[in-house]
Amino acid sequence: MRVGSDSPTIGVVGGGQLGRMLGEAATPLGIEVRVVDPTPDPPAAPVVRETITGGFDDPAAIRDLAESADVVTYEIELADPDLLERVADETGVPVHPAPETLRMTRDKLIEKQRLADNDIPVPGFRGVDDADDLQVAFEAYGRPVMLKARRGGYDGRGNAPVEDVEEARAAFGSLEGLIAEDMVAFDRELSVMGVRGPTSRTTFAVVENIHEEEILRTTIAPGRTDDATRRRARAVARDVLDVLEGRGVFGIELFEIDGEILVNEIAPRPHNSGHYTIEAAVTSQFEQHARAVAGYPLGSTQLRDRAVMANILGDGTNPRAADLACVDAVLETPGAALHWYGKREVRPLRKMGHITLLPEGDASRSELLGTANDLVAGLRFD
Amino acid sequence: MRVGSDSPTIGVVGGGQLGRMLGEAATPLGIEVRVVDPTPDPPAAPVVRETITGGFDDPAAIRDLAESADVVTYEIELADPDLLERVADETGVPVHPAPETLRMTRDKLIEKQRLADNDIPVPGFRGVDDADDLQVAFEAYGRPVMLKARRGGYDGRGNAPVEDVEEARAAFGSLEGLIAEDMVAFDRELSVMGVRGPTSRTTFAVVENIHEEEILRTTIAPGRTDDATRRRARAVARDVLDVLEGRGVFGIELFEIDGEILVNEIAPRPHNSGHYTIEAAVTSQFEQHARAVAGYPLGSTQLRDRAVMANILGDGTNPRAADLACVDAVLETPGAALHWYGKREVRPLRKMGHITLLPEGDASRSELLGTANDLVAGLRFD
Repeated sequence: MRVGSDSPTIGVVGGGQLGRMLGEAATPLGIEVRVVDPTPDPPAAPVVRETITGGFDDPAAIRDLAESADVVTYEIELADPDLLERVADETGVPVHPAPETLRMTRDKLIEKQRLADNDIPVPGFRGVDDADDLQVAFEAYGRPVMLKARRGGYDGRGNAPVEDVEEARAAFGSLEGLIAEDMVAFDRELSVMGVRGPTSRTTFAVVENIHEEEILRTTIAPGRTDDATRRRARAVARDVLDVLEGRGVFGIELFEIDGEILVNEIAPRPHNSGHYTIEAAVTSQFEQHARAVAGYPLGSTQLRDRAVMANILGDGTNPRAADLACVDAVLETPGAALHWYGKREVRPLRKMGHITLLPEGDASRSELLGTANDLVAGLRFD
Repeated sequence: MRVGSDSPTIGVVGGGQLGRMLGEAATPLGIEVRVVDPTPDPPAAPVVRETITGGFDDPAAIRDLAESADVVTYEIELADPDLLERVADETGVPVHPAPETLRMTRDKLIEKQRLADNDIPVPGFRGVDDADDLQVAFEAYGRPVMLKARRGGYDGRGNAPVEDVEEARAAFGSLEGLIAEDMVAFDRELSVMGVRGPTSRTTFAVVENIHEEEILRTTIAPGRTDDATRRRARAVARDVLDVLEGRGVFGIELFEIDGEILVNEIAPRPHNSGHYTIEAAVTSQFEQHARAVAGYPLGSTQLRDRAVMANILGDGTNPRAADLACVDAVLETPGAALHWYGKREVRPLRKMGHITLLPEGDASRSELLGTANDLVAGLRFD
């Protein structure tokens, strides 16, 4: 392994906050980053070598990216697996994780089926394409069921618990291309960042996630669960890694229910619930992703400190220029790290940034959670 | 304090490794960085918004920089204080630290005199402009004396211990514009990163530095000295901060001698002996510098872990393309972080990168030092 004139360039489909944090993490390794994004001047722009303006499914842009990179990855499931596969074939530049894994994880029905086929525990699920399918789901799982668009949903968009067909039509319009899931009465939502490297696989700590309106609000590291559950969660995450192909970091979302673990969703990329690793793990998920896709040995996933991550979400009801006020309290709190994503426009519930809070002294995780929530509540978009 | 469309841009004179690490640290705060550097594609280029190609003393380039920034700083003492002062006057864009402080610290005689005038302990020194001056220095301090160029020296260039006038002429040519210093028999070389913020001042931990051939090789954090000496070193560093003007991070190099502290040199910028803060302090020196010059509240300087930083220096005898081999051992060592500076050409003893090693388990600082030295010794430029 060498760095210098041979150092790899990573081409990334997507230049949002994940691309930005990947850029911040890659240069110390001597790795440069180029991104493709449809938005001019996306969040990653100021910290990457080049921003190619083009759609995630724009063949010319994706080919440009591959031709100026040594390996291609993606930070958004809107990347097109067929196009990536074709460009990899034509240019000889590998894509990590494998396009096949992107194809699986961007369709919630295929993903769940693949997991179930591999004896990985998941909540009950079935495909829905019309009202009859939905009725069958109600009979199987009771009401409500969690109804999700198989493709294209994110941050809670395209997810809704529904009690009957009318509610489903109100939420989704057409009932085609959906998946109905058993709404399990979980005790906790957990997640594990898993990593497939060139010669090894590893997992980060088991963390606890708090969602509201289907959007992640806070992550608590490590999760406030018992050791046996933590061991079980990491074992399930390792099993999930075995089902995936190619190298990279994966966000593996889990439900804890009576000490058992069910897999909820997999993101084939660094994940919001892994942002805590920037400050609280020996290697951040972004450095780890850069190492993995570049073919470098993986770093230590050891937790250095307990921590709480809290998202800064857009407020109000209409889009406007992004101007966050009252940031002093965050900057003045010892152990609070600010991560601003540089988005120009704030929209309701849009992810605009996050803070990670490390303990000063012996503050408990619940105390950290309280402080982090207070800090975020004190912020205000003008 | 706000982030978003009002977030400041920092203009930096110099785009070397310090500018690169400043760029990596600034974006999470919503701060963008632009640099001026005479080298096309300098180390900072891939992680900053813009690189202006121009000399450190090029009025047009420095004015361009100021006009595209909200505050100007410098990462190299070759910046020109007169020019910075003029551009600040003409554009209204402030310069931090103050040009007056740059003027003082870039001339070792003025610096020492200013410190001595403020009752800050320094080794004996006197200006040398000819052989007679040097003779007076030998009489005052014995032989050898440490002879230094007052201006323009760095990383040991322009420093030499000399026994007599002939040796001095061999090392320096002309004897004009030098400073002779008493070569104190110090027990340890220490340093403290000090920070002047908008409303407060603070210091990082007291660390220990090992130099060879006048070039920093390793930093041990915290320094292996006693508590009383550490307190004394921080107190002296605070006194030094009072003599300086403007905001920013300062590298304050110290000698420990019989429990007493003498000030050796001050760098008006983040410093090689502060690189350990990236992994080992709550706030890195680069984030702290960005906060300070942008006028944000300062972060916590608390040490999170003990750590050893070791420089990766150029080897061989002639310049060539920079290609570092055998990096696997560094990447595979848990707790070892690589920082590659992206310089295209390796030259003998040039600073090419560094590693910081955090302890796994209860490794002592001396054990960390041994491991860090072994890791750097295992690297090789092809």
